[in-house]
Amino acid sequence: MVATLIDLTEHCLSSKIIASGGMLTVKCDQVRLPNGNTSQREYVTHPGAVVVVPILSTGNVVLEKQFRYPLHQVFIELPAGKIDTGEEILMTGQRELFEETGYTASDWLKLGHQYPCIGYSNEVIHMYLALGLNAGGHQCDEDEHLEVFEASFTDCLGMIQNGQITDGKTIIALFMAEKYLALHPHVPHV
Amino acid sequence: MVATLIDLTEHCLSSKIIASGGMLTVKCDQVRLPNGNTSQREYVTHPGAVVVVPILSTGNVVLEKQFRYPLHQVFIELPAGKIDTGEEILMTGQRELFEETGYTASDWLKLGHQYPCIGYSNEVIHMYLALGLNAGGHQCDEDEHLEVFEASFTDCLGMIQNGQITDGKTIIALFMAEKYLALHPHVPHV
Repeated sequence: MVATLIDLTEHCLSSKIIASGGMLTVKCDQVRLPNGNTSQREYVTHPGAVVVVPILSTGNVVLEKQFRYPLHQVFIELPAGKIDTGEEILMTGQRELFEETGYTASDWLKLGHQYPCIGYSNEVIHMYLALGLNAGGHQCDEDEHLEVFEASFTDCLGMIQNGQITDGKTIIALFMAEKYLALHPHVPHV
Repeated sequence: MVATLIDLTEHCLSSKIIASGGMLTVKCDQVRLPNGNTSQREYVTHPGAVVVVPILSTGNVVLEKQFRYPLHQVFIELPAGKIDTGEEILMTGQRELFEETGYTASDWLKLGHQYPCIGYSNEVIHMYLALGLNAGGHQCDEDEHLEVFEASFTDCLGMIQNGQITDGKTIIALFMAEKYLALHPHVPHV
């Protein structure tokens, strides 16, 4: 809760769904602004997501390459996915890590959460550090196409600096993990 | 351009607009997956945005508090806004900084760009460091309600760690600025 000097709250007057596809639901609400004027707010409703920073005993990070249709390009990303209805967020992290990379992890540390798109989406992304990894079978969905690879933590930070990693959720989770690892030097990373 | 071992490209078969409000345009495309199956991709089309890290000669960062309707809460954010049609991205940064905070800046340094929401939006956010600030008149739109305030760079990083700053674009731009400032210690910051 962020305190403010004046009331900045916008109040809902009415709400309707303007798009409801297989994946995205978009709402359009009429709102009353703090100055009494009315305006319109359109936004995507999202169940929330979890992103995982999986670090191997070698210190390498497990990453993926995935084609993202809205940008028509391949991105380097951390394992991540949407929260299923009723699912605990830690379970989402564990499920997505396994489904996308085949790894399970014995130690899970919460790194916080962030809102990627506050202007037009209610999505929240929870971030975890996953340690004590064990390789299992790759359980990727038939229609989910991705390439799993490894990079050192230093190389991950270098790829942010040189523009090879531009996915917002991946940048934030790696930076949050960097801060965590700086405070916890016993955790393996190189 | 991220190289991959196998072709991950999804090809557009058809595209239609499923929502077109005052602000958001949402498309739904039929696509051919790499394995030959067909699927559906829904996404928001966005003109792109610019976020600015304005640093005063005291080392303080200029920030804002703004109510964000999709999350029904006030966020601590850096000045930012959408690119107008045909506008140069540096102009967007200069315009938004002035409109939202009343400041102009003599020195603008590009910090890179990031994609906040690659799963369902084509938005790109360009990041600038703005130095050599001069206070002018606050030109905020009548219906744009926000509170401008200052915090030291150290306090900004602390607010990310303690969860007071959770806006994705603000977190990334502050971390990118931190990396830049570490490499350029002559730039004022405390």
